[in-house]
Amino acid sequence: MEDQMRISLDLANQALNIGEVPVGCIFLYNDRVIARGKNSVNETRNATRHAERNCVDEVVDKYKDTWHDVMSKVTVVVTVEPCIMCASLLYSLKVPKIVYGCNNDRFGGCGSVMDVLPLYSLECQLVAGVLKDEAMSLLKTFYAGTNPNAPLSKVKIKKK
Amino acid sequence: MEDQMRISLDLANQALNIGEVPVGCIFLYNDRVIARGKNSVNETRNATRHAERNCVDEVVDKYKDTWHDVMSKVTVVVTVEPCIMCASLLYSLKVPKIVYGCNNDRFGGCGSVMDVLPLYSLECQLVAGVLKDEAMSLLKTFYAGTNPNAPLSKVKIKKK
Repeated sequence: MEDQMRISLDLANQALNIGEVPVGCIFLYNDRVIARGKNSVNETRNATRHAERNCVDEVVDKYKDTWHDVMSKVTVVVTVEPCIMCASLLYSLKVPKIVYGCNNDRFGGCGSVMDVLPLYSLECQLVAGVLKDEAMSLLKTFYAGTNPNAPLSKVKIKKK
Repeated sequence: MEDQMRISLDLANQALNIGEVPVGCIFLYNDRVIARGKNSVNETRNATRHAERNCVDEVVDKYKDTWHDVMSKVTVVVTVEPCIMCASLLYSLKVPKIVYGCNNDRFGGCGSVMDVLPLYSLECQLVAGVLKDEAMSLLKTFYAGTNPNAPLSKVKIKKK
């Protein structure tokens, strides 16, 4: 999953470069990327516009009547553990697999702060820690208040 | 808050009559109703279209650039305790007060199953149990699988 995670990290880096909390996400369906999202809280002036939700909206737009079925077969690849709101959103949509990078120690809904999965009657495979250091470096850069447009010497993202 | 809750119960009843899980919600701002929402999961074919989220979207549409400010002064009046996803959504938007009817024993995010408030750096006043029997009766009617279009002999909702 590292190759796919690098796509999400690239999206997170794009978010960082425009002053957003650097989180990126893709949805895979039949091994194809069908949605790409990044945090857009500042751009949209909407505190709930997280990367995962933006991907869900892309799937809703793209697949019309079949989007629920698509969601039930999607693999989510996101740089940071989904927050409680987004984890609940993904589980509500019966996503079968979530791959994430670093933990979300403040709001993580996949176990770091709370584990909301047991509330939903489904199995969801969770794969944590994929390229977690890269994901965490992006967050640290953001929260350190360094110039997000400056070269990120500590963050190496291999472009696809 | 009973008068306001009856507006939400009326919305929940409307949801029941079209085969939706009967949950209704209003947002109050300066004592005025600025948003009315009901569960619309079936109608929209979107498992995450809960009453509270529909109200949030109405505020986003209505108040454009000031909607975050409005949300930080809103009182939410909802017939059923918000689920974890919706509680997180409302807390993310810094809602200062939530009034609800019956508990949500499966997904409640305001204490019944989980209490997600401590994760958010804010105070939110929670008032539980307002006309809870009426709210619960609607849910029981729905889950009993009775004809939602039949007269609801056990549910008395005083129209405003």
